[in-house]
Amino acid sequence: MEIISENRIFGGRQLRFKHASAVNNCEMTCAIYLPPQVENGKVPVLYWLSGLTCTDENFVTKAGAQRYAAEHGVAIVAPDTSPRGEGVPDDPEAAWDFGLGAGFYVNATQAPWNQHYQMYDYIVTELPKLVNANFPVDGSRQSIFGHSMGGHGALTIALKNPDKYHSVSAFAPIVSPLNCPWGEKALSNYIGANRELWKQYDTCALIPGADKKFTLLVDQGSADNFLKEQLKPELLQAACKENNHPLQLRIREGYDHSYYFIASFMGEHIAFHAQHLSA
Amino acid sequence: MEIISENRIFGGRQLRFKHASAVNNCEMTCAIYLPPQVENGKVPVLYWLSGLTCTDENFVTKAGAQRYAAEHGVAIVAPDTSPRGEGVPDDPEAAWDFGLGAGFYVNATQAPWNQHYQMYDYIVTELPKLVNANFPVDGSRQSIFGHSMGGHGALTIALKNPDKYHSVSAFAPIVSPLNCPWGEKALSNYIGANRELWKQYDTCALIPGADKKFTLLVDQGSADNFLKEQLKPELLQAACKENNHPLQLRIREGYDHSYYFIASFMGEHIAFHAQHLSA
Repeated sequence: MEIISENRIFGGRQLRFKHASAVNNCEMTCAIYLPPQVENGKVPVLYWLSGLTCTDENFVTKAGAQRYAAEHGVAIVAPDTSPRGEGVPDDPEAAWDFGLGAGFYVNATQAPWNQHYQMYDYIVTELPKLVNANFPVDGSRQSIFGHSMGGHGALTIALKNPDKYHSVSAFAPIVSPLNCPWGEKALSNYIGANRELWKQYDTCALIPGADKKFTLLVDQGSADNFLKEQLKPELLQAACKENNHPLQLRIREGYDHSYYFIASFMGEHIAFHAQHLSA
Repeated sequence: MEIISENRIFGGRQLRFKHASAVNNCEMTCAIYLPPQVENGKVPVLYWLSGLTCTDENFVTKAGAQRYAAEHGVAIVAPDTSPRGEGVPDDPEAAWDFGLGAGFYVNATQAPWNQHYQMYDYIVTELPKLVNANFPVDGSRQSIFGHSMGGHGALTIALKNPDKYHSVSAFAPIVSPLNCPWGEKALSNYIGANRELWKQYDTCALIPGADKKFTLLVDQGSADNFLKEQLKPELLQAACKENNHPLQLRIREGYDHSYYFIASFMGEHIAFHAQHLSA
C-alpha cells in the first residue's frame, strides 16, 4: 500500500492510496478521510460507494462530507467504482454506463469481465482487511452508504452481510437492476443471461429474505432525470411494504441526481450512521 | 444574460449564467448561489474571486460554501478568473500563471492584453450592475473575498472601494504582486514596465493610504507550497503594523493551498461577512 497524497481538512487528513488488488487483479486507488479523533484511538468507519463514471475523487472533492465526519469522529473510505488499468476490459463502445467506472459492485462470472471485475469481494472483504490493517479504524464498527449505482451497492452489500455493518443508507439508489436499463446491461454482461442469478444483486429481490436489522434510509430527489426509467423508488417502497421491512424513504422536492443533492443531505446521513456506530 | 444551468442545493439554487461583457469584450460565464431566503426578499451578496487556473466552477463544486450561505441568507457570486473565448490572447507558452485563468483582477493597459483583460472594472462595476438587475440581491449590502490571486483581487478591490463593500477576507492571498514572481509576470505584461503603476494593484502598497474601515481577515496554511516564494504574509503583517491597519491573520497549522484548506474555514469567513452585512 502506498500513500499518494495527503491534505489537511477540517482538522483531519484526507488521504489517497493505491494498492495491488488480488481480487480485481489490478492496481486500485482509494481515498480515506481520517478525522481528528484518530489521535485518541481507533474510530468507526463508513464506506461510501460512488455512482457510474466516478473515481475515488468525486466524493472527496464534492460531497462536503469531511466536515461531518470530523464532527462525529468517523473515518470515510471512498473506493473507485471499477478495476482500471492496462488489460482491464471496457465496454466495447466505451459507454459510461458499463465497464470502466461501472463495476456495479458485483462479482463478474462471464468472460472477459470475470478476470478483473470482482467489486463485490473487493468492497466486502479485500478492502476492509487492507483498511483495518493500515489505518486507525475499528473494523468492528462499520457502516455503508452510496449514490445511484453505489446506493445499489451499499443496499445489496448490507442486506447480504448484516453482521458486517451497523447501518446502511443511499442517495438515489438503483433499487432493482432486474428492472432498469442500467441493470440489464451490466448484469447480462457481468453475470450472464440467467436472470435468476441477478437476484443476489437486486435490493428489491433481496428484501423478502433479508434480516430486518436495517432501517433503509433513502433520499431521492424529485427532479432526478433518472427517476422514472432507472431508479424507481416505488419498487423499493412496495418490496419493503410487502415484507414489512423498515424503510425511511424521503422524496426531496426539486433536487436532481448531482452532488449538489448529495451535499445537501450528507450531514443527515453521516449523523444517522454515527448514531448507529456509537450505539 | 442567459441561465445555463440550475441545481437545487441546501434549499436554494445554484445557477450558472453567461452574458456579453462590454469591458472584457467577450462572453463571460459566472455562477451565483441564491439561498432559500430570497423567497422573502432581497438578500446581501458576497463576491468570491478565485485563484489561478480556476473558472467559475471550482468554488461552486469544492468549497462547500452553499451550506453556510443558506444558513446566513447570503447570495454568493463566483465569476471566472479571466476573459475567455476566441480572440482572447493567452500566455504565448500557455503557462497557467498568466493569461487565460489568470486575469489578476486588474485593467490591462498594454497590448494585446488591454483589448480584453479588464477584470478590475468587470468585478467592481459591470458584474454587480448585471447581478443587481437580474437577481434578488441587495447591491447596497455586498462584501468580497477570494483565494490566492483572488485573495489579492478581493483585498485590493475592497481597499480601493471602501464604500462599495461591507467587509473583505482572503484565503492564502498574494499580498504583494510587486514582490513575487506571479505578480511580476502578470503586472509587467498587463500594466507594463513602470512599477509605480503596479502599486494601485498591490495590497501592501495600498495599506498606507487606505481607509481603516476594514479589518482584513486572512487565513493562511502553514504547509502551503507557495507560502515563501509567492504569498509572503509577513509583508502584509508588516504593512498593517506600520500603518496601524486592522488585520486578523491566522496561520493554520498543516493546511496547504488547496480547496481542502478553503473548505475547512469557509464557514468562519461566511459568518464573518454575514455579521458585517447585517450590521
